[in-house]
Amino acid sequence: MASEKPLVTVTCTAPVNIAVIKYWGKRDEDLILPINSSLSVTLHQDQLKTTTTAVISKDFTEDQIWLNGQKVDVGQPRIQACLREIRRLARKRRSADDKDPLPLSLSYKVHIASVNNFPTAAGLASSAAGYACLAFTLAQVYGVEGDLSEVARRGSGSACRSLYGGFVEWQMGERADGKDSIARQVAPELHWPELRVLILVVNSEKKLISSTVGMQTSVETSPLLKFRAEALVPAHMAEMTHYIKERDFQGFGQLTMKESNQCHATCLDTFPPISYLNDISRRIIQLVHRFNTHYGETKARWDWGSTGNP
Amino acid sequence: MASEKPLVTVTCTAPVNIAVIKYWGKRDEDLILPINSSLSVTLHQDQLKTTTTAVISKDFTEDQIWLNGQKVDVGQPRIQACLREIRRLARKRRSADDKDPLPLSLSYKVHIASVNNFPTAAGLASSAAGYACLAFTLAQVYGVEGDLSEVARRGSGSACRSLYGGFVEWQMGERADGKDSIARQVAPELHWPELRVLILVVNSEKKLISSTVGMQTSVETSPLLKFRAEALVPAHMAEMTHYIKERDFQGFGQLTMKESNQCHATCLDTFPPISYLNDISRRIIQLVHRFNTHYGETKARWDWGSTGNP
Repeated sequence: MASEKPLVTVTCTAPVNIAVIKYWGKRDEDLILPINSSLSVTLHQDQLKTTTTAVISKDFTEDQIWLNGQKVDVGQPRIQACLREIRRLARKRRSADDKDPLPLSLSYKVHIASVNNFPTAAGLASSAAGYACLAFTLAQVYGVEGDLSEVARRGSGSACRSLYGGFVEWQMGERADGKDSIARQVAPELHWPELRVLILVVNSEKKLISSTVGMQTSVETSPLLKFRAEALVPAHMAEMTHYIKERDFQGFGQLTMKESNQCHATCLDTFPPISYLNDISRRIIQLVHRFNTHYGETKARWDWGSTGNP
Repeated sequence: MASEKPLVTVTCTAPVNIAVIKYWGKRDEDLILPINSSLSVTLHQDQLKTTTTAVISKDFTEDQIWLNGQKVDVGQPRIQACLREIRRLARKRRSADDKDPLPLSLSYKVHIASVNNFPTAAGLASSAAGYACLAFTLAQVYGVEGDLSEVARRGSGSACRSLYGGFVEWQMGERADGKDSIARQVAPELHWPELRVLILVVNSEKKLISSTVGMQTSVETSPLLKFRAEALVPAHMAEMTHYIKERDFQGFGQLTMKESNQCHATCLDTFPPISYLNDISRRIIQLVHRFNTHYGETKARWDWGSTGNP
């Protein structure tokens, strides 16, 4: 067809998000459906971000993907799930709207290059930013609109929260097909401008145990995780939403610390145990507590990524 | 009275016990009643022990006590509780048996010297051995017979388990006065001679947070601790007793590790969080898992005292 462009290039960036109500454990490994809802703060892209460029061309003979300059296996199930899902949505959109002017062939192969400006797979939510960016960039390339929660989630659960700025909840949903397991903004970017997030990298090495393997083992072996997901998180979600809406730093800070500890506690209750905190993380925890005790209120709080990075 | 001896000296030793079902948290701070039952292995006194000498004399004007050569405050509530309790039992025995030949006056003051041949207050159950020894030694001096669980328990909860050798359970009991919160032997010293306990001291410093303060904070702030005590420990007690009776090292080892992790998990779920494990403890945990994976079965297991000493 003469109207097809020979090449389309799109570059997007996506932010990291830090969960204040933690996601740890799936009820469906394939669809990436969580055992509890979660809530996060999206960080500004001035500091940490993923930048992804996607190109489609009729001349490409296969899908290809590079991460931080290294070619990676495009056949990875999660990358495949994202590609499949975005192409499905694009096809659906075309068939729903016959007058769709989008000329690009869905049969075109895509080349993707993604770069993080921060340590990858070190517990700093690189996969969240990465898959949010992948979903968004592919959506631009293939002309898909609407909620991308499902596409991003299929890459990495918490990625669906990085599709929005500000404060974002990922509702666990109830349906077996995951259609109601989506991200929603609780409060926008400019809602709480005084809030500052300090990232201290105490360990930039790749995690010994990936989040995927870790949470799978936790779901299988930790009775405390099951109890937490069912009996404690629903109330935490409601409380945290309230604190955010009221800009209550005391409540927000305390609950964030408790959530972080409780999530790491369920990791320790896993068999074999998982420990993402180290002696430096623990010293920072003590420092924050002394600081807050000194000022008589919660002026600082910690939160921990999954290699102990606060 | 001419029949009173001028001086009575008794020296006893008591062993350390290592809990394989953990005691963490009291339902009554004063009577030292636990929120769950616990079960321990008593170690041989060849390695770790407390040695206590008690002397009574009509010439002493006050009770006095030395720990590891340092004089300590005899007015400490727990020492006072033990002294009061043993004297109460001695009085009760005298009044019950008029023909009691015991000539010693209960009004005599006591001097006590106690020595540990291992680090004190470093998570190696020094208070368990110490108060068990105190209770037993005082019982000899004042001529008290029968169960000393209550006397030892008033000094330090887990001390009641050090009154027996072998495998000992401390039944939490249900009564408000604690009369049914007592230690009982599950299996005797020679029941499982192949079992070896290796003590690795990774930290001999005094704990930053004492067990007493730590468990009080945990009871007040950790929802996971409450759940564990009520919903998980009863089954663990039954399983562990079974493994001990059957000399099943696979089951015994696995459950011991899970119990240890779960207890430390509830410490981490405490606010502010308590962490008795450090990077060396974690490396030992990994080593044990690699060792067991290599041999394809649980040949080694860890357990942790409250400063991370396995």
